[in-house]
Amino acid sequence: MNTRRAMRAFLDDEVIPAEPALNAGDRDTLRALQTRAKAAGLWALGHPAELGGGGLSFGDFVLVNEIIGRSRWGQLAVGTVSMQDSIMLHRYGTDDQKSRWLAPLVAGEILPSVAMTEPEVAGSDPTLIRATARLDGDHWVINAHKWFTTGASGAAFTTVFARTDDAEPHRSLSAIVVPAGTPGFDIVRVIPTMGTTSGDHCEIRLTDVRVPLDSLLGERGGGFTVAQVRLGPGRIFHAMRWLGQAQRAFDLMLDRARTRYAHGSTLGEKGEIQRYIAESAADIQAARLLVLDAAAAYDRDGRARDEIALVKFWVARVLHDVVDRAIQVHGALGVTGDTPLEEMYREARYARIYDGPDEVHRMTVARRLLADPRRAPWRRDDAD
Amino acid sequence: MNTRRAMRAFLDDEVIPAEPALNAGDRDTLRALQTRAKAAGLWALGHPAELGGGGLSFGDFVLVNEIIGRSRWGQLAVGTVSMQDSIMLHRYGTDDQKSRWLAPLVAGEILPSVAMTEPEVAGSDPTLIRATARLDGDHWVINAHKWFTTGASGAAFTTVFARTDDAEPHRSLSAIVVPAGTPGFDIVRVIPTMGTTSGDHCEIRLTDVRVPLDSLLGERGGGFTVAQVRLGPGRIFHAMRWLGQAQRAFDLMLDRARTRYAHGSTLGEKGEIQRYIAESAADIQAARLLVLDAAAAYDRDGRARDEIALVKFWVARVLHDVVDRAIQVHGALGVTGDTPLEEMYREARYARIYDGPDEVHRMTVARRLLADPRRAPWRRDDAD
Amino acid sequence: MNTRRAMRAFLDDEVIPAEPALNAGDRDTLRALQTRAKAAGLWALGHPAELGGGGLSFGDFVLVNEIIGRSRWGQLAVGTVSMQDSIMLHRYGTDDQKSRWLAPLVAGEILPSVAMTEPEVAGSDPTLIRATARLDGDHWVINAHKWFTTGASGAAFTTVFARTDDAEPHRSLSAIVVPAGTPGFDIVRVIPTMGTTSGDHCEIRLTDVRVPLDSLLGERGGGFTVAQVRLGPGRIFHAMRWLGQAQRAFDLMLDRARTRYAHGSTLGEKGEIQRYIAESAADIQAARLLVLDAAAAYDRDGRARDEIALVKFWVARVLHDVVDRAIQVHGALGVTGDTPLEEMYREARYARIYDGPDEVHRMTVARRLLADPRRAPWRRDDAD
Amino acid sequence: MNTRRAMRAFLDDEVIPAEPALNAGDRDTLRALQTRAKAAGLWALGHPAELGGGGLSFGDFVLVNEIIGRSRWGQLAVGTVSMQDSIMLHRYGTDDQKSRWLAPLVAGEILPSVAMTEPEVAGSDPTLIRATARLDGDHWVINAHKWFTTGASGAAFTTVFARTDDAEPHRSLSAIVVPAGTPGFDIVRVIPTMGTTSGDHCEIRLTDVRVPLDSLLGERGGGFTVAQVRLGPGRIFHAMRWLGQAQRAFDLMLDRARTRYAHGSTLGEKGEIQRYIAESAADIQAARLLVLDAAAAYDRDGRARDEIALVKFWVARVLHDVVDRAIQVHGALGVTGDTPLEEMYREARYARIYDGPDEVHRMTVARRLLADPRRAPWRRDDAD
Repeated sequence: MNTRRAMRAFLDDEVIPAEPALNAGDRDTLRALQTRAKAAGLWALGHPAELGGGGLSFGDFVLVNEIIGRSRWGQLAVGTVSMQDSIMLHRYGTDDQKSRWLAPLVAGEILPSVAMTEPEVAGSDPTLIRATARLDGDHWVINAHKWFTTGASGAAFTTVFARTDDAEPHRSLSAIVVPAGTPGFDIVRVIPTMGTTSGDHCEIRLTDVRVPLDSLLGERGGGFTVAQVRLGPGRIFHAMRWLGQAQRAFDLMLDRARTRYAHGSTLGEKGEIQRYIAESAADIQAARLLVLDAAAAYDRDGRARDEIALVKFWVARVLHDVVDRAIQVHGALGVTGDTPLEEMYREARYARIYDGPDEVHRMTVARRLLADPRRAPWRRDDAD
Repeated sequence: MNTRRAMRAFLDDEVIPAEPALNAGDRDTLRALQTRAKAAGLWALGHPAELGGGGLSFGDFVLVNEIIGRSRWGQLAVGTVSMQDSIMLHRYGTDDQKSRWLAPLVAGEILPSVAMTEPEVAGSDPTLIRATARLDGDHWVINAHKWFTTGASGAAFTTVFARTDDAEPHRSLSAIVVPAGTPGFDIVRVIPTMGTTSGDHCEIRLTDVRVPLDSLLGERGGGFTVAQVRLGPGRIFHAMRWLGQAQRAFDLMLDRARTRYAHGSTLGEKGEIQRYIAESAADIQAARLLVLDAAAAYDRDGRARDEIALVKFWVARVLHDVVDRAIQVHGALGVTGDTPLEEMYREARYARIYDGPDEVHRMTVARRLLADPRRAPWRRDDAD
Repeated sequence: MNTRRAMRAFLDDEVIPAEPALNAGDRDTLRALQTRAKAAGLWALGHPAELGGGGLSFGDFVLVNEIIGRSRWGQLAVGTVSMQDSIMLHRYGTDDQKSRWLAPLVAGEILPSVAMTEPEVAGSDPTLIRATARLDGDHWVINAHKWFTTGASGAAFTTVFARTDDAEPHRSLSAIVVPAGTPGFDIVRVIPTMGTTSGDHCEIRLTDVRVPLDSLLGERGGGFTVAQVRLGPGRIFHAMRWLGQAQRAFDLMLDRARTRYAHGSTLGEKGEIQRYIAESAADIQAARLLVLDAAAAYDRDGRARDEIALVKFWVARVLHDVVDRAIQVHGALGVTGDTPLEEMYREARYARIYDGPDEVHRMTVARRLLADPRRAPWRRDDAD
Repeated sequence: MNTRRAMRAFLDDEVIPAEPALNAGDRDTLRALQTRAKAAGLWALGHPAELGGGGLSFGDFVLVNEIIGRSRWGQLAVGTVSMQDSIMLHRYGTDDQKSRWLAPLVAGEILPSVAMTEPEVAGSDPTLIRATARLDGDHWVINAHKWFTTGASGAAFTTVFARTDDAEPHRSLSAIVVPAGTPGFDIVRVIPTMGTTSGDHCEIRLTDVRVPLDSLLGERGGGFTVAQVRLGPGRIFHAMRWLGQAQRAFDLMLDRARTRYAHGSTLGEKGEIQRYIAESAADIQAARLLVLDAAAAYDRDGRARDEIALVKFWVARVLHDVVDRAIQVHGALGVTGDTPLEEMYREARYARIYDGPDEVHRMTVARRLLADPRRAPWRRDDAD
């Protein structure tokens, strides 16, 4: 696939060498990369063509996303970071919402944010959400305490999930768009996580925030559905980027094992290290086949719930394991900021929690398989 | 794939119900199944059509083999147990060898055997083989002590790997066909393994066994190549049958979890059991995608060395893990002969040793990746 | 400890060399060993002195039991196999029961059996037991279907746990002694397990079995307590024997690694094998310290419920892991009956199920720790 | 042990509540804690009494150190952070060195630093050290490039390990004391590790640094011995502090599991979480018994090389596993700085590398056991 090769060249030759500058907060470097990505036809490849994106099919974009994942700066550099939100807006937004947000979002001129998880209740169980939005004349009045509202401090708008109705749990939430600067929308803090605040995970509080009636994204009571539409493919996108990270860690592990000498030989000649390499190669290849299989299933039915649940917990562990081994092969260097491994290691820890902790995905998929054993993915091959 | 569905019906409706009889040694039942398999067009599906086989492509046969693996009796019932040897004979046999052995082999009238491993030296390192065959006039005179010569006591012939030449290690072995009953070919014992002798793993001794010159299979000094041709696809066949076993164990685990009650709920409602189910589903699907990927690679280049090495150690572990969890869900029942699980568990332990222990495959694949990192299977997607 | 050294010499010099004969069913060899054990003052060391036993304290016996565990024949050879039942009888038996059974039990002239687990219900949940014993005049009339009644076919009596009362679950069971040959007590079969029937795990059926009123062991409704008294220390005895097995597997692994050559070096020079050795050494030492700690706790309070639950699931895994690695280092030899490893491997699989599956012990200990975090074993050091 | 209880009260009631201030860099709070520790008789408990320390025996101090480990600030608050260096100085220092550094070190008025590891070569293989010190008149002239010289930027002196002799590897290194401010001793940077620079791991460069002849610590060529004396007990101290961390993580996990609600129950009622709790309890108790056993062995022979090697890699994994589970039970909160878990998680990753990566300890202990199987720790019980 030519696009994949071109993207790989852009990542390896332009983005990765720029990482030290990007990590140091150099915005000009980022903008220069974005400009070059646009010029090279590598911008927003997964966004629909009618929005100004590359219009890659889901399956093709997933393969490109693996490459983008090689650098933590990949998504920003090539304009795919807003993809989940653009799709959500494209599908559920009113004409007014679309005209206001969509073009600058795709162009990378603004960034979105989503407020779902709350500190007081388990984020994996949306029936527990406490945020409320009540009608007051022609406005929604929102009160909420959210966190892990990633990017909220720099976003043009935040999509807030709040309880609008006293209905059964899956019909009581709505998604509401709140523009930055709306009175009562406060950033409490950027939450320190895993030693940094650089992920820009915000804790926010909405106090009597008023937005017009037409700020709903999707229908009233349809918030759960909107969230699912956003999360399902998002988990596949994440997983492919994780694999890009794992592959980069693997490359670094091989390089180190080939050259580092200790106790009478290079590390690569030692059996424990060989085991790390072989296990990692198998883990990565198995994981990416699993993700591609889930992507194909999603392409067929637009859901692929079981496949995505399996991918979510299973690939997150592979990411951890590969990065962990790569660190070990690097010794003390591996825990320093001189390689990207330690940052990958910290990010890998989140991966087992965000978008639903492992335990919830395991419970979900097990219950579904118990209810109908024919859902086992290998049974599809024999389905009529 | 219609053939897969037909094979599944044959396995689930005919072979599996006959297992108690087959396990008890009832040969009539086996013969009746073989007759029905032939009548149903399910016999020897992977053998070349010109030999009287089904002529399935490698990739298609692999998918059918997964189904055959559901029962330990599957291979015998549908005539695929001799496939590796038939291919070897088809490719390397003289006209005379072919005319003598090939037809009855494909028809299931005779069984083959291979003598490679020796008790005194590591079987994974063929450079250590001690068996010798020296020329004496127009005969080879073979002296050897072998074990894990599976099926030797009932085979029509045994292909013996012995040192014929004083050349560099990979050019010193030859494969020689020794018909049953040749003087000096003795079955020392059927080796007790994992509590039984039913696997018919024989220890044999060849003392001045004389066979005619044209008993060579392949060229003189070409034994290593013959063995590789036999082992490579064989490992893929094994792996798919392992997955058939794992899937059956998974089915049994689900059934048990749905119905067994303890400590206030069915087992399926307990979090540990749900974890076993979800992990197993992911493991099986990832493993089978990995095997299918290796099969596709083998189809392309006829080697797929890295892919097959990864599959060998990685899928053997998955088989163990899934069967192990299924046993645990069955409690005391799981260690009895009342389910096939305990037999699977014991067989799974061999799987990490035969055809090369895990450690050797990990060493091999790691060395190759260190020598050329572009061999990583995921790099193929970007190869020119 | 002199006794430990003497026992080790007896095991290593007499019992282990006799294993081939013992495995082949040679009863004379067993009796000769028993005679020598008695002569050497090594017989029934853990039984109370007043019963004719060695009178070792619990803590000392546990250390000796580790040595006895080196051979699967150890318990029978040195007269400790009946220890749990002797203690139970000693504590709860009537004078008549004691005089009839206790002396020959301690002398090794008869063997006991216990019927608890039933095939229809989860053995780990005694509230589910279906066996009943109802009063009919001066007799109990027992109806039961039991399995894993180990040794029933050769036992002098079987202690049957049955429901005698319609009380709350933990007050409804009673233990009743049923002598061999009582009409209605039938051995349905010796259950095939893990490839053999040699463990003598019986499935039995009691149909209107009548025994006199005074056949109760302990008080009516006290069966649950009797069972606990039997099981608690029994789990510690098991665990120490498991460690004896693991240590023997470790010794075999070291021997093999020192001498076996493949791929350019002895196995012991290879990193993966070194890892197996180091991990096993740590696992074994940690496990035995954990068991000794539980034994000390049991010595203090006669219960040690949390400690024993931890030991049960944790040490069973160590046994598996060490034996598994030792097999792998032995290659094909490891799965044959030519070493004790494959038998240990199969036995190790039971260990995670009998006396309660891992999952139940984990659930129990977690619930107790959640109810009172001060139960964590390391908190004892700071208790008043 | 009363001291342990007093220390626990000090940690739980004073140090832990002060953590937010301490993490924010508040030096006054630290000084206040140190003053209170001294007043309470809890200062420098493990230092020899003749140095002004508490004079606790090694075994007793280890148990106290477990408590100190509950907070990352514990060591600084109670004056034990300099213990390894004080012991080294006490044992090997000249009278002058002792009079200059020892008293303020024990009093907590100055901090030490050690420069061993170098970026260019494997730190676990001291034969590779490149730093040199050559004699020039009555001075040593040192040239070195070191990193992970922890605390160098705030230390009163740094003990530098450098090659002074062209002898066999273990006789070629010497330890040399370099006071802060010596010309040519430069802090290159504080190395960013795992998202922070707070560990104060320095990269330093010594360019023609001159120190007087009597700056040697221990004898010329005796650096390897000095290092071992420092590292052996140090690894036991580390391990006990790790256990303090693990126990605190365990406490947090229990608290969370008891109160957090999701998907129909508290987390503590879910099987996966119960498994985390039970496994953690067993892991922690087994690990601490293993460390205490190594400490006892060290007390006996002053070396305990095998025991300490086992502890080093085995307990580091337990620390990781327990903290990892505790994070998972906390969900998103677990990766934030709002609990100490994420900091523990990052520190736990170092633990598998510093003082020798796992692989080196496994190699070492395996080689020693292969050379003499009687070194297995459980064999000590039967030694004469």
